[in-house]
Amino acid sequence: MAKLYGGIEAGGTKFVCAVATGRGDLRARVQFPTTRPDETIGQAIDFFQRQSEPVIAVGIGSFGPVDPNPASPTFGHITTTPKPGWQDVDIAGRVQSALGVPIAFDTDVNAAALGEHRWGAAQDVDTFVYLTVGTGIGGGGMVGGILLHGLMHPEMGHVRIPHDWNRDPFNGTCPFHGDCLEGLAAGPALAARWGQRGETLPDDHPAWALEAHYLALGLVSLITVLSAQRIILGGGVMREAHLFPRVRHEVQALLNGYIQSPEIVEWIDQYIVPPALGDQAGVLGAIALAQMRA
Amino acid sequence: MAKLYGGIEAGGTKFVCAVATGRGDLRARVQFPTTRPDETIGQAIDFFQRQSEPVIAVGIGSFGPVDPNPASPTFGHITTTPKPGWQDVDIAGRVQSALGVPIAFDTDVNAAALGEHRWGAAQDVDTFVYLTVGTGIGGGGMVGGILLHGLMHPEMGHVRIPHDWNRDPFNGTCPFHGDCLEGLAAGPALAARWGQRGETLPDDHPAWALEAHYLALGLVSLITVLSAQRIILGGGVMREAHLFPRVRHEVQALLNGYIQSPEIVEWIDQYIVPPALGDQAGVLGAIALAQMRA
Repeated sequence: MAKLYGGIEAGGTKFVCAVATGRGDLRARVQFPTTRPDETIGQAIDFFQRQSEPVIAVGIGSFGPVDPNPASPTFGHITTTPKPGWQDVDIAGRVQSALGVPIAFDTDVNAAALGEHRWGAAQDVDTFVYLTVGTGIGGGGMVGGILLHGLMHPEMGHVRIPHDWNRDPFNGTCPFHGDCLEGLAAGPALAARWGQRGETLPDDHPAWALEAHYLALGLVSLITVLSAQRIILGGGVMREAHLFPRVRHEVQALLNGYIQSPEIVEWIDQYIVPPALGDQAGVLGAIALAQMRA
Repeated sequence: MAKLYGGIEAGGTKFVCAVATGRGDLRARVQFPTTRPDETIGQAIDFFQRQSEPVIAVGIGSFGPVDPNPASPTFGHITTTPKPGWQDVDIAGRVQSALGVPIAFDTDVNAAALGEHRWGAAQDVDTFVYLTVGTGIGGGGMVGGILLHGLMHPEMGHVRIPHDWNRDPFNGTCPFHGDCLEGLAAGPALAARWGQRGETLPDDHPAWALEAHYLALGLVSLITVLSAQRIILGGGVMREAHLFPRVRHEVQALLNGYIQSPEIVEWIDQYIVPPALGDQAGVLGAIALAQMRA
């Protein structure tokens, strides 16, 4: 009998739960809005308890900041999130004590990165980034096949980038840093700068050239610091498919021939790409986390 | 009989060669200026051939850009360097064919990072950066105990940072990017902006507050992208010891409490540090590379 794994994509807006043996064999899937921790984590536990067969491990990819360090007393907690009610919530512990199976726990973006490495757009590389551009900007990834953790986990949305105040007098929306990458280029920044949500702006609106410029500046940081072999861009803002060629072009312009890798100079269409797993990267990545833990 | 290893720190200004069994047992050491490849690589080979006992492997940490990928046809080459005469020089191949021993080859900064990990300021961490601030700015390091390579190797000096043109109308010195981190904060930028070499400027000169600000912006990129557990700052500019407290303070101000790790909030004196091996980090790191290869 095939082993069943559970996955939870614990997002700040919605939770997605799934049961699968692997990518091609999703047995059940459910999603529901993120409300209070008791209610939402309870719904996730219910979903797994209702299955006719038990899962042997559960992987959780969570919004954050989180503590993904198994040696830490607060492992599996959401820590200093600004989301009301969710500070210091022991999400992994609650799921573990209800289901009695091993729990793997990481950031939502590391889970998505792992999913793309196992089954998606990063199968042939071991040093890459998965960056999501939506309500916030967050990044995960691998270096030499190892998921990025370090001090805690990356906070790629909060990288500082040049901000031309003449071209763009907008202050930025980040409550901590103002005009960091997230403050200038996440969905709320688009909406606040232009007075309407990004998805209502036409493709030829100047918003998109500016957006591509900021995202490209962030990607240059990922390329120069990590020497990424591929960059996967997901999240709501990246559903604007016309952003991809703009961002690729802008990255080449900013690097200006300094990094003479064919991946960047010749094959940038395969270097900066959307997630091959689409919206399922997160929950499938959580399944992959569970497989590693079991 | 103890095994002897050879190390070459191949810098753009000078080469340092050493023979050792390990850190505490340096048997011979020599340094000479970097001139033409034939002459300089020849001097390195002569040094090892003159030793009474042969080395069993040689590690080379080289200025770059280089090709450190053992599977590549140009492995061990310096590639697109602007240094006249040194483009496409097969430094590892020349040393290998002269000495007939295995050669390990990496960037100068990855070698220094490895040296600090083995014997210096990064023994207790596995995800960290060694950044050198001198004639240029370059960074190496490890993630999860694995040396950073990826697409090629990091080019941390070329990360883009905010540039306040009102405070600092200087264009930057980078021929590729103008005002990237290296263009604004390496030694030549200091000299060009202020009309005198950095080491001749008094400690209370406004140059240093600006320098600390730019370096801190670069460090914020390393922290947010890599989640570094420690940052080691070496190179000629960092001999100005008064820069360390300034940079630490500026990093805390820029992060503004967002990353609530005690390493940054409480113990930043042990988070941003000079190399414990001092000027020997590079050549001892090359010895460590040789030990890994043998």
